[in-house]
This record gives sequence, structure tokens and C-alpha cells, in this order.
Amino acid sequence: MKHGTSKQERHGTGPRLDRRGLLRAGMATAGTALLAGGPHRAVPGETGIADWATVPGAAVRGYGTPSPFESEVARGLLQRWKNLAPAFGLSVTPLERLRGATTPNGLHYEVHHAGVPAIDPHAHALMIHGRVRTPLRLEPAALERYPMVTRAHFLECAGNGFFNATAAEPPPHSAGMLQGLVSGTRWTGIPMRVLLEEAGIEPAGTWAVAVGADAASLARSVPVEKLMDDALLALYQNGERLRPEQGYPMRLLLPGWEGNMNVKWLTSLWITDQPVHTKHEVGEYTDYLADGKVLQFSFPMGVKSLITHPSGGMRLEGSGYHEISGLAWSGLGAVARVEVSVDGGATWADADLEAPVEAKALTRFRLPWQWDGEAVTLMSRAHDDKGHVQPTRAVWKARYHPTNYNHYNAIQAWHVAAGGEVRNAFA
Amino acid sequence: MKHGTSKQERHGTGPRLDRRGLLRAGMATAGTALLAGGPHRAVPGETGIADWATVPGAAVRGYGTPSPFESEVARGLLQRWKNLAPAFGLSVTPLERLRGATTPNGLHYEVHHAGVPAIDPHAHALMIHGRVRTPLRLEPAALERYPMVTRAHFLECAGNGFFNATAAEPPPHSAGMLQGLVSGTRWTGIPMRVLLEEAGIEPAGTWAVAVGADAASLARSVPVEKLMDDALLALYQNGERLRPEQGYPMRLLLPGWEGNMNVKWLTSLWITDQPVHTKHEVGEYTDYLADGKVLQFSFPMGVKSLITHPSGGMRLEGSGYHEISGLAWSGLGAVARVEVSVDGGATWADADLEAPVEAKALTRFRLPWQWDGEAVTLMSRAHDDKGHVQPTRAVWKARYHPTNYNHYNAIQAWHVAAGGEVRNAFA
Repeated sequence: MKHGTSKQERHGTGPRLDRRGLLRAGMATAGTALLAGGPHRAVPGETGIADWATVPGAAVRGYGTPSPFESEVARGLLQRWKNLAPAFGLSVTPLERLRGATTPNGLHYEVHHAGVPAIDPHAHALMIHGRVRTPLRLEPAALERYPMVTRAHFLECAGNGFFNATAAEPPPHSAGMLQGLVSGTRWTGIPMRVLLEEAGIEPAGTWAVAVGADAASLARSVPVEKLMDDALLALYQNGERLRPEQGYPMRLLLPGWEGNMNVKWLTSLWITDQPVHTKHEVGEYTDYLADGKVLQFSFPMGVKSLITHPSGGMRLEGSGYHEISGLAWSGLGAVARVEVSVDGGATWADADLEAPVEAKALTRFRLPWQWDGEAVTLMSRAHDDKGHVQPTRAVWKARYHPTNYNHYNAIQAWHVAAGGEVRNAFA
Repeated sequence: MKHGTSKQERHGTGPRLDRRGLLRAGMATAGTALLAGGPHRAVPGETGIADWATVPGAAVRGYGTPSPFESEVARGLLQRWKNLAPAFGLSVTPLERLRGATTPNGLHYEVHHAGVPAIDPHAHALMIHGRVRTPLRLEPAALERYPMVTRAHFLECAGNGFFNATAAEPPPHSAGMLQGLVSGTRWTGIPMRVLLEEAGIEPAGTWAVAVGADAASLARSVPVEKLMDDALLALYQNGERLRPEQGYPMRLLLPGWEGNMNVKWLTSLWITDQPVHTKHEVGEYTDYLADGKVLQFSFPMGVKSLITHPSGGMRLEGSGYHEISGLAWSGLGAVARVEVSVDGGATWADADLEAPVEAKALTRFRLPWQWDGEAVTLMSRAHDDKGHVQPTRAVWKARYHPTNYNHYNAIQAWHVAAGGEVRNAFA
């Protein structure tokens, strides 16, 4: 984990991005001057005192919900797959409606292969068995006694960005619809190493088959090395118990690795001496390469970023100051640098990274921008601390077969028209 | 913000706390050995395959909710004040049911003086007026264009801990009921400095009166110096728009200062040359001292901690390994150190602090513990990076009048009986 770079000197400032002196000049247009100062109680609206200032409001509640005025801030449900539910279900995080680097649990993206099971935690257990000295049966209540750690990690579906990966023309969708199969939360759980050391893995136990309790019996082969490194048996998310759609009562968390491997409703961890090539790892979660071969076991998600503000479907209200803000992440380490271009990639300027910058976690980047009101193309390019750089779409497409959509991490471009309309672009 | 201390050497280990070698020995009792390894699909329960493994589950949803099996994890509604609602409403965070250092928005504590207003953001605005050069009227939609920062901060009611502050005998409540008027989230908003610089504060403008749009017209005087330092106009919490009970569509956030000053539903910031001594700052939010005087404007919340696991109402299931875990915070800076005692304060050992340790934010501490099965008293004592140390209850009580309950930050003790029952204690 590293500190933000907001106080560091930076270079590489592009022609229409200026890191100093812009803010004050641009701000003056954003507020509306009043005629004069008033009494200590300012009255909103034009028709006198609002109702809510004159009558008592609602009582306290056991568990809160968002304002009814925010009801459209919801996970996107893609029409394309609606008829397949509950066999297959998918919803995306509305990235363009959120700020910071935390996804609320209610808006975390979902991909299910047999819907969301309603698991009674008293009738659920995780078995750790196979090539171990002491097979374990671990019930949720007993796990509360184990040591727990909390870490920020993103989860990203291997197929995130599929629209852009395969379309001939840029689909006119929002940031969430295009790239919202990624979310970032703080997970609390038991280091898998603690449980595996208790079970005692035999020397031949080099792989584990993780199986979910859902009706899909979703199963993935995972190297034991990863389980002993930074994997968690996740029990809590953003402070509270996992939601059903995130694996309640327990899921496997493999930081930085493709979402599907983070098996939800985990019920079995079978230690083996080889991968077992389940349906979910020989079919949909493989990558089709340009040379006709298929890449299996491409576990980590690559370095990636996207601008969320402004983004597709928004409209800039006038020239002058705007803040460019977005998210960056890497399954291979921590975000080290995010560059932003406002001229379609001709020149780039470094954005500020908001602390805390944590490994394999969403990182928010920000950059002040003075828009001159002309048509421009915005892009962001992330680097991680292992030296990986986000590729252009052309470079990414050259590597993969035209039909491949998994592990799409190409640069996302947004075209801003002279009228302020923002739209997905291939650049 | 500082890194956790888990890899540092530590001293001060107490007699029944041992930082090394305990974990492995203790763990062996927590799991239940299976007779043998099985097929790749382990079956939970005793009656064969569970229903949820045989039929498709629920479809994806726009906004998720917790499992029905977790319905009892809710904010505590104190019977004492139920008849006063909606004039006064209060709910506490169930600290003992949560992990990590993030409070989910639905479980953030609430204190309202006229209920929760249902504000239409299109009919709400913040006025910045009084001793400024350019009065501003700021509507929520226009604020989206301003620069936004995200920071982790706790909020704590000035009266948190009131049961323990004034009771003659320790009330047998849970951690949440005793100390749950504190929560920690990640807030996104506009630095108040940006808005005040746009308005242009006159030299005489040294105080601001912040007023809420609720029917209580809750108002507090705030030094401009604090607003220019680290205050935010908060618009988002844990990534999404503020909840109504947290001030939707906007609230004042004064990091580290007593909750009541963080005015919700903020509609007016009147810049003045002196505090105006509102009802809410000359009455309930003052501190009664032992010498009969009353302390007004005691803004920052003191350094504090409490053990959440184990805590009041829980029962330890057997001797051996347990993890002691809790929360620490300071309104004056970052948590620098948390000590834990398992012998009623005779000896202390340093706990691990979980990264990221951020200023004026909840910090999770953890310590492995081998319980010998005998009656013990657990305590935690926090230090911040400004040199403040959490006082004993006796020291705190000596400073204040017997009826005072505001700014109670004394050490919380839990008595563990030989049978494992955990109960609030004064020590």
C-alpha cells in the first residue's frame, strides 16, 4: 500500500491540462451569486419553506436504504441475458453514479450460473479434504473464532468490457454498462493459509478444486500456492456479513484473479495433485488468441482504468472547469500511475491518485481540467507497480481472436462533442 | 495515514498474551476432523443435498439486501427514547456484529432532533452568505462539477457511552448498545475550503453557523478555521449518495468533531464574526465539570477504543485460542497504539493495527489470545499520534460532574466468567 501522489511534483502536463491555477478561475462560474446575505435560516426553493422543514420527519430504522430520489442508482440488468435467468444472471455496477473507490454492497456486480441460493448458515459447511492430513468440516459459527484480516480488493469478471472487446462500432452505453463488471470493497475473512496449515497439506497437494453450494456446483481449480499467498475465506464485506449474491455465508477470495475463480457459497476445497479441468475453466473462462490457440488458466486480471466522470451518456454543462475522475486497478499489484489524455492520446498528464493506494484494489484518480468547449477525446492509461501498462484497443485486439472478450483491459476512450455530449469511442 | 504495525517488533507482552507460537496450537480445536477425503462435491448437513444445491436460486436485483438469516443484525433502537420519536430519534451501530473498520451505510448510527426529512434534491440548496464577498446558492446537481475528495472518517455522538458514564453499576448491554453511537465510513465531498474561497470570506468572518433543513433547524456554530482545514461538504458515503438519515442530499463533515456539529441536510452556512450560541450548543452538547462549571465548544472527540470481540452478551465456547479484536479512534489524529490487558489492567500487550491507519478514522486492532478458562477482565487502551491516551473510568469521572455523559472516552472493560459469559464491567 502506498500513499497518494497529490503532493509530489509531476511532469508530462498536456496542452489543455494545467495542474495549477485553474481551479480558482474555473470555480467562479459554478455557483450562483445571491443578492445579499440573509438571516441565519436560508430558505430553499422559490415557494417558501419546504415541507420537510415544518413537520417532523421519519423515525429511525433498523437498517437504512437509499433515498427514493436515488432509486435509479441501481445495478444494470442487461436485457441480453434476462431470458436466461435464473440459469445465468448478470448485473453491473453503475460506476458513473458512484464516487470514491468503494462499491456499496447493494451495488456490487453479480454473475451467477444458477441464480442466488438462499443458504441457511446452520446447514452449510466448508469441507477441506483430499490430500491433507486432517480433513476439516468448518461451519460458519465456528469460523467466527478464527483470526480475521480485512483488505480492500476489487473483483472483476473475466468478461468485463465484452461490448467493447467484440463490437465493430463503439456501443453507446454508460461506463457501468460497458465496464461495470468490476467492483471494489473491503473484505474480512480468515487467511486461507491458516485453514490449510490446520488441515496439513500433503506434499503432493499442489492444486485445490473449489466448489460452490449453488445449483451450478460451480467449480474451479486453484493453485495451492495462491491459497497460501493472499487468499481469504471471506465472511464479511464492507463490515457486514456477505450478501447472498456475494457468496453468503462464505466465499473464496483470490485477490486480483478473475471473478469466477472467487467461488461463492464455498462448500468444498478438495486438495489434489492437478487441476481437474471443470466446465467453468475449459469453456467460457478461457481466452481465444489471434493464432487460433486457447489460453487456459489466465488467472490475474490485467492493469486497467477508466474515466467515470465524465463518461458515456453524460453531458457537460458548459465549458470551463471540470474534474476528470476515474478508477484504476491491477490484479498484479498496486496502481503506480494513471495518465490522462484530453486529445485522443497525443499528449498525457499524470492524475492524482487518492490514498490509500492498496494492492489489487480500486484506486480513484483525479485531474482538474479546463474544457474549451470544443470536441475532444478523453482517455486514461494505468500503470501498476510491476511495470505493466494498459494497452490500446488496437494492441489488445491484435493479441486475441476477434471473438474473444475475456481479459479485455484496453484503454477506454470517451468522445466529448462540442455540445458536451459524452459517448463511448474506439481510439 | 500510517501503515499497520504487524511487522514491527513489539514489547510489553503480558503474562497470558503471547504474540508467537500460539496460533497453531490453538487452532487445532476449532475445526472438526472428517473421517476421510470425499468426492469433489462435499454435501452440507446430514440429510443429503441441500435444496439450494438442486434448484436454481433467485435472479439478479438492482439493489441488494442482506441475507434474511442476518435480519437481527440491525441498528439498536433504544426503548428509552422510543416514545419521543419523531421529535428525537436515536439508533446505534451493532459494533459486535461487524468486522473490519467500515460501517455499512444501512447500519450507521443515527441521532435526529426532528426525524429524517425526505428532501427532494431538486428543491434543496446550500446558501453560503453573511460576511462573504460573493454569496453563493449551491444546488446538488451543480455541485457534481466541483472537485471531490474521499476520506475515511468516524462520526461519534458527543453522548456515546452515556450508559457507562452515569450508571452506578455496569449496565449489562452489548458493545453496540453501550458504545455504538460511533460509526466509520468513507466520505466523498467537496473540500469546504474550495467553496469558501469561491465565496470569499471577509476578514471579520471567523465563525460560521451551519443550519440543517430539517424541522429542528438544527444549528451549530463552527470556527471558519476548521472549515478551511479539513471540513467537507459531504455528498457521498461509502461510494454512493448519502442516505437520508445521514443528511441527503448534503451534510457538513467536520472530521473528528462531535457528531452533532456535522450538520445534516445542510442548507445554510452563515459566515459571522462570532458564535451565536444556538440551542444545540448551550444545552445538551456541553460538558458538566466536577467543579460545577460547564464546558462549551468542546469540539474534538477524545482518543478511545473498545474490544468488540469478545464483548458483552457473547459467550466464549471453550478455552484455548481466541482472537481479541476491536476498534480505536481519535478526533485529534491517527491511532498510534492500542494496548490490551487480559488481567484487569495489571499488564498490557500491544495489539496489531490493521492498515490503512488513517487520521480521525476507525482503526481495527487485533491480538491473539490463549484463554485458560478462568475468569478474566479484558480492557483496551488507545493512544493517538498527538500523545493522548485513553483514561480509566475513575480518571474520567473525577474530571466531570456525576451527571455528565458527553465526551465519555474511558477504558471499556469486559468481564469474562469462568463459563465464558462476557459482561460489561467497571474497572
